[in-house]
Amino acid sequence: MIVLPGSHRAAGLLDDTALVRAMLEVEVAWARVLGSELDLGDWVPSLDPVEVEAAGNPVLPLVSALRAKVSEPVHTGLTSQDVLDTALVLLARGAVERVSVDLERVAGALARLADEHRSSVMAGRTLTQHAVPITFGLKAARWLVGVLDALDELEFVARNLPVQCGGAAGTLSRVENPVESASALARHLRLVWPGLPWHTYRAPITRLGDAVVRACDALGVLAADVLTLGRPEIGEVAEGFVAGRGGSSTMPHKRNPVLSVLVNSAALRAPGLGAQLHLCAARAVDERPDGAWHAEWPALRALLELAVVAASQAAELVEGLEVHADVMERRAREAASDLLAERGGGDDPGSYLGAAEVFVDEALKRWEWRDDRGV
Amino acid sequence: MIVLPGSHRAAGLLDDTALVRAMLEVEVAWARVLGSELDLGDWVPSLDPVEVEAAGNPVLPLVSALRAKVSEPVHTGLTSQDVLDTALVLLARGAVERVSVDLERVAGALARLADEHRSSVMAGRTLTQHAVPITFGLKAARWLVGVLDALDELEFVARNLPVQCGGAAGTLSRVENPVESASALARHLRLVWPGLPWHTYRAPITRLGDAVVRACDALGVLAADVLTLGRPEIGEVAEGFVAGRGGSSTMPHKRNPVLSVLVNSAALRAPGLGAQLHLCAARAVDERPDGAWHAEWPALRALLELAVVAASQAAELVEGLEVHADVMERRAREAASDLLAERGGGDDPGSYLGAAEVFVDEALKRWEWRDDRGV
Amino acid sequence: MIVLPGSHRAAGLLDDTALVRAMLEVEVAWARVLGSELDLGDWVPSLDPVEVEAAGNPVLPLVSALRAKVSEPVHTGLTSQDVLDTALVLLARGAVERVSVDLERVAGALARLADEHRSSVMAGRTLTQHAVPITFGLKAARWLVGVLDALDELEFVARNLPVQCGGAAGTLSRVENPVESASALARHLRLVWPGLPWHTYRAPITRLGDAVVRACDALGVLAADVLTLGRPEIGEVAEGFVAGRGGSSTMPHKRNPVLSVLVNSAALRAPGLGAQLHLCAARAVDERPDGAWHAEWPALRALLELAVVAASQAAELVEGLEVHADVMERRAREAASDLLAERGGGDDPGSYLGAAEVFVDEALKRWEWRDDRGV
Amino acid sequence: MIVLPGSHRAAGLLDDTALVRAMLEVEVAWARVLGSELDLGDWVPSLDPVEVEAAGNPVLPLVSALRAKVSEPVHTGLTSQDVLDTALVLLARGAVERVSVDLERVAGALARLADEHRSSVMAGRTLTQHAVPITFGLKAARWLVGVLDALDELEFVARNLPVQCGGAAGTLSRVENPVESASALARHLRLVWPGLPWHTYRAPITRLGDAVVRACDALGVLAADVLTLGRPEIGEVAEGFVAGRGGSSTMPHKRNPVLSVLVNSAALRAPGLGAQLHLCAARAVDERPDGAWHAEWPALRALLELAVVAASQAAELVEGLEVHADVMERRAREAASDLLAERGGGDDPGSYLGAAEVFVDEALKRWEWRDDRGV
Repeated sequence: MIVLPGSHRAAGLLDDTALVRAMLEVEVAWARVLGSELDLGDWVPSLDPVEVEAAGNPVLPLVSALRAKVSEPVHTGLTSQDVLDTALVLLARGAVERVSVDLERVAGALARLADEHRSSVMAGRTLTQHAVPITFGLKAARWLVGVLDALDELEFVARNLPVQCGGAAGTLSRVENPVESASALARHLRLVWPGLPWHTYRAPITRLGDAVVRACDALGVLAADVLTLGRPEIGEVAEGFVAGRGGSSTMPHKRNPVLSVLVNSAALRAPGLGAQLHLCAARAVDERPDGAWHAEWPALRALLELAVVAASQAAELVEGLEVHADVMERRAREAASDLLAERGGGDDPGSYLGAAEVFVDEALKRWEWRDDRGV
Repeated sequence: MIVLPGSHRAAGLLDDTALVRAMLEVEVAWARVLGSELDLGDWVPSLDPVEVEAAGNPVLPLVSALRAKVSEPVHTGLTSQDVLDTALVLLARGAVERVSVDLERVAGALARLADEHRSSVMAGRTLTQHAVPITFGLKAARWLVGVLDALDELEFVARNLPVQCGGAAGTLSRVENPVESASALARHLRLVWPGLPWHTYRAPITRLGDAVVRACDALGVLAADVLTLGRPEIGEVAEGFVAGRGGSSTMPHKRNPVLSVLVNSAALRAPGLGAQLHLCAARAVDERPDGAWHAEWPALRALLELAVVAASQAAELVEGLEVHADVMERRAREAASDLLAERGGGDDPGSYLGAAEVFVDEALKRWEWRDDRGV
Repeated sequence: MIVLPGSHRAAGLLDDTALVRAMLEVEVAWARVLGSELDLGDWVPSLDPVEVEAAGNPVLPLVSALRAKVSEPVHTGLTSQDVLDTALVLLARGAVERVSVDLERVAGALARLADEHRSSVMAGRTLTQHAVPITFGLKAARWLVGVLDALDELEFVARNLPVQCGGAAGTLSRVENPVESASALARHLRLVWPGLPWHTYRAPITRLGDAVVRACDALGVLAADVLTLGRPEIGEVAEGFVAGRGGSSTMPHKRNPVLSVLVNSAALRAPGLGAQLHLCAARAVDERPDGAWHAEWPALRALLELAVVAASQAAELVEGLEVHADVMERRAREAASDLLAERGGGDDPGSYLGAAEVFVDEALKRWEWRDDRGV
Repeated sequence: MIVLPGSHRAAGLLDDTALVRAMLEVEVAWARVLGSELDLGDWVPSLDPVEVEAAGNPVLPLVSALRAKVSEPVHTGLTSQDVLDTALVLLARGAVERVSVDLERVAGALARLADEHRSSVMAGRTLTQHAVPITFGLKAARWLVGVLDALDELEFVARNLPVQCGGAAGTLSRVENPVESASALARHLRLVWPGLPWHTYRAPITRLGDAVVRACDALGVLAADVLTLGRPEIGEVAEGFVAGRGGSSTMPHKRNPVLSVLVNSAALRAPGLGAQLHLCAARAVDERPDGAWHAEWPALRALLELAVVAASQAAELVEGLEVHADVMERRAREAASDLLAERGGGDDPGSYLGAAEVFVDEALKRWEWRDDRGV
């Protein structure tokens, strides 16, 4: 059963079954390195949780189940961290791909909004108070820049996701051609062999985590702004109407900005999860650590799930966003004397937009460049 | 499937099904306040995740399912936050009870160790280096004090867990006898009615969270010390041997201190989750917040689960701990000149223990006092 | 020079000089335990930072300077952590007293607002949208409850602040009458002797930290609500006008809600600092830890300073708050059909306030009870 | 006075005076954009903290002081955030340069250790227990990889540090040639003009923060490993002896691993500060935020200071590290039956090192490549 709103959007991507499948994928690839082609079909063994705990992680029980099923040599030379780290990287790859697809949708929708509303004048707001006028196009362009940067960074991270392959203590002591084997494992899984194991060097994980948090930061700003601009007293934007969404259990006619609320919620969670990954990185002691590694898994999975869900919700939010340019412009006119105080007064906010349009074009240029190279 | 080592120890306590059951328990109790006695048996409806998201939380779909099932009036006057907050409090009560039971076991075992080893001399270690001598009894006594304090605090929190009951905006506008009804709801659920709703006043949650984190801090110190003292070069303690536990996927004869590693891991995670609850508390704006509330649920459940698992593991760890007093005493003698440098030298570390025994007795007195009152 | 806005409000309370003075106070008290009455007057030695680092903390250089100045025996039997922990507790006591005084002011002002505006109808807002009507008195009452709880907790913590006294490894090995001496030290400093040293049991610090964070949470909600209600489109409250405050470097007539912004800012910082204290507590290994203790000091001082400043700012904010009850009531009337949708319609929001006034009275009762006992 | 051990290593880099100087540097550069060459000499105005708070930040008082001093037009068209953000970026540049210089020293020393000890066999340790043998050269090589990666990332960040230039609401409304002026400001300060203002798009800050945290993670692993290997029972490494360092206030002959303790301490603090920056980024609402920006400054400065100090300490630590290869090899021989259990037994740990040397060479290659390009 799924009770956390939105988590169905990440269904099957990061749960325990997905993790077991990914571990099997690693074992199959390693068996191939060892010279066997395993065909496991859809097989997913059920692991005994007591054995999982006894081993400290699910790999040993999985390998036992695998050895009971196939006669070929499996796992030889790997340590459990090789399998679990690589499996988590595979899950991360899938999650980041989903996040990226949805961020592309967000970016596309924001680019359209930025272009369409390049002349939609609205009140600028700083420290909650009216400042000089801006356009809604500029606001959308600024959101867009955040999303595009997150996309670039996620793609960079995704292209460099590493295989873990070090054996018991990071020397691949039991593997005959260690470097060739590690490289082959990477190739089979379409990952990168980074030249050394990274059992105690966790930058591959923190860099991934930071990029994901940065994506959530960008979505969080967007959601928080939509929440403010959608307050009934402001009414400059609204979440698109979807029958049945945003209802209240007590007020039948209420329409809550559910997607913005949920994306906002995700943005409040992501930084702490990212910090957890760094803390684990800083405590990755000895040749393989005594607890910091174990604390990494739930944080990484929670962070990835949160991002998959939030990016998907944000895409729907932005694609459906209702923009009330008329309300914006009316308010800007009514507040003209405040908005134009910097200039010494006036009554046409649209005449004091500075470089707003230049900045819109700058953001759109980045989007188009991205679009052009057929990303 | 359960893949996170140890999470079977919290099975059924905090998962989505448990949450739905708890929400039903709240609705049944409220129906009773409204004058109906519902008998739902084992019924647990399956909620459509799309509807859950559309509502922003699982309560509305649950109420729809409930209304389709029973003809009595249900939910009237409550808001979804009333139901979900109270349900989470019910889950928390169950979790805290389990944590407390296991902390009692930890405390009992530590009290025995403190008493038994009140004369087991060992090297004191500060900033990793040898300092003056202590006894293992003192070390156990210090661990004990942390656990006893956590127990007291958890019990205090558990006794004061509040019902949430405020209606749409915290006025119970639709409830005829608001205060009486809220009190009755509390009574039916054996919770406390705190006098006002706490939709935007989250101290009940942060206080619970802080107490749980403090319990994990205490267990973390214990686990980290066991890990250090159990290093092969030190060898002064060891996790009790359990067939099949602590094995390695590559080194057949290895015996990893799995329980300590996992408890240590939990202690690295708890502070961040507690901070998440505070951040949500600080952002609990308006009459009901726009995302901070939603960010609270996963942090609270993760924190509670982590504590249930860690306390259970710690109980097993401490009850089975092997203490090598002979190794301790031999090392202390060998290092006597360093350990006794403060006194100006000597060769009998056991003659320079200061108030070690007094402090052991102080800790044991607290435990016995607790034991006496039949907690 | 002070550049962080508001930090002058904590001037002299928590800076390095204050810490050195507090350490001297501890040494003087301990000298008294040892039988000497030192009179140091205003003397504050300058410590060589290279020596501070070489010792790992400022105590050893301070003791050297002290021994060069006085001929009486000083420090004998203490470890540096005894002095520094106790000194930090003394600083904390001063800071918590200041926070409490200012929270009293906040509470007093909120109580007046709650009473005065018990009939000031306004729109309730949930998930940013209009819900059922409330009163501004109820809103103030809810803020009040948070502040009163924080006050109670801070007072409890302040009354139980412990002296640290354990010697090199927590046995007071070099002290002749260890328990009597520790108790005397506590008495001289008006602190509590907790029965055992707490070098590696850090609940005294985390409990203090949690209480302070909880106070900031309460102030953060208040500030965030004021920021929202003070947006020009809402205009239901405003920070009191103070000449020169809230100005903009570019818009001469702007009036920024500076105090709310700064209190809001503090509330975003407090949870992370509180988590830092817990992390340090969980890593307080051996007889005295290898880094976790050192990481505690800056977090504790930053958290205390932040709370002193925020409480002082909040007092000024609430005491000067302008409440536009007319705007509130006009808006509630205009939005009546939404606000009363739960009831099925109507046009008098003031007729649908549920238990709002009961809850106001409940909050005021707590304040008066507090006031009565002459706190 | 400086009481935090090691903070003298960052003296003058990040304190309030340095910040005021940096703000002046920005104003001077902007005056140049406006057509004036100001010569302020050493002038640093003293700011009234009450005015700083009234303005919400130190820029307005600084500009007032500046306007009282010079007759040329200053600040026109900028907002306070332009000045303060850019000033913080300038401080960050200086701090990152210092961190990089010291990380180079760390890397150089580690490269020498990796090479020198490529054949120094030692016990591998996983989950605190003996695993297969490794070499100390491999351990140093792994530390080196973490440091080199952090260096690369910091250099990338440093090369892309952006100027902030947006005016009141990010449109540069009051600047005649906005883009040219912003570009000129960047040029004068040797920063990058990123094409748009980033008042509410904080990736430039979070990316900087993440890189700095990652550097601390790498140093933290190193320090934690040194602390473990330097325990008296292990004795495989020791901090270099420096007269007067590591002394104890009670045990005259003790030699504490002060540098490792302090670096370890920094690594426990960095993740929380990095998370603070992300949280502020996620709450960077409106055209300029209502508190999130203010919460960023202390976290950024604390994080940078911490990294400057830790990198400098780590350089001294690694350059002076005593490596007891004889102890390592003796222990490895004694533990041979455990270390070689994977292979099925044996007595020569040096014969079972797998790819250890290959990995050392891989790490050294990266260092040499870096060295070659004359970084």
